Amino acid sequence: MSPPANRGVPRSGCPISIALEMLGDAWSLLIVRDLMFKDKQTYNEFLQGGEGIASNILADRLRKLEAAGIVDKRADPSDARRFIYRLSAKGIDLAPVLVELILWSARHETTDAPAPVLRAMRGDREAFIAQVRQRWRSGR
Amino acid sequence: MSPPANRGVPRSGCPISIALEMLGDAWSLLIVRDLMFKDKQTYNEFLQGGEGIASNILADRLRKLEAAGIVDKRADPSDARRFIYRLSAKGIDLAPVLVELILWSARHETTDAPAPVLRAMRGDREAFIAQVRQRWRSGR
Repeated sequence: MSPPANRGVPRSGCPISIALEMLGDAWSLLIVRDLMFKDKQTYNEFLQGGEGIASNILADRLRKLEAAGIVDKRADPSDARRFIYRLSAKGIDLAPVLVELILWSARHETTDAPAPVLRAMRGDREAFIAQVRQRWRSGR
Repeated sequence: MSPPANRGVPRSGCPISIALEMLGDAWSLLIVRDLMFKDKQTYNEFLQGGEGIASNILADRLRKLEAAGIVDKRADPSDARRFIYRLSAKGIDLAPVLVELILWSARHETTDAPAPVLRAMRGDREAFIAQVRQRWRSGR
C-alpha cells in the first residue's frame, strides 16, 4: 500500500494519524535521517543510502516530503540541472522523534548505532538535539 | 506497498531503518496508540478506531506487531474465542516516540489534540510518560 496522499482531508484529527499520513511508510524517515544526520542533500546521495531505496520510490517520497513542508528543494548553485534538498524548520523539528526512535530501536534490537552517540543522546537529550539544530542552522 | 516483513534480515543496521521495518506504515502506530492511550484491547475495538482501518489490514498489522514483540495476545478469560491484546514492555517503551510525534504534529498541523494534554506533555514530559507507564502496569 502506498502511504496515503497527504494534504487532502485527513482521515482523523488525531495528531499521530496526521503525522503518519505524511511520514507513515518505510522510507520517508530515512530520507529525513539522511538530511538530518548524514549531510546528504542530493537525489543521488539519497539513492546511495544503505537501504537500497528504488529510484521511483525515492522520487515519490521526496515529492511528498516537499508537499508536506518537511523538505525544501532548490536548484544547485553549481549545477542548475540538479536540486539540493534541505530540511525545513518543520523537518528539523522531527529531531526529537528520530532520537526517541533510535533509542527505542537500540534498546530492543541489534543495531549498528555507535555507542558514543547513544550515550550522548541518553546522557543529555536536549543538548544532543540542540547540537543537531545548530548544525542544521549553520548549513542553511 | 506493504511494510517490509520484519524478523527477516534487516535492510541495514541503522536503528531508524530497523524500527521502520516494524512500524513504518500508516497503521501500526495507530494500533499502538489505541493500546497505549485509549484502553482498547480487542480486534473490534481497533476496527472501530476513528480512521477506518480495513479488517484485513488490521489483522496483518496485529500479526506483525505480535511477531515484532510489541504486542502480546492472549485468550479473553471471559470469552475464549476472543483475544485480548496488550502492549509488551517493548511496546510501552514506544511512549516517548508517540509523545514526540504528537507534539510535532500538534505544532505543525491542525489536530484535535486536547490542549491540556499537550500542556501536560510539554510541561513535564517525563512525568507524563511515567503516568502512561503506570497505567500500563496497573492494567496488566
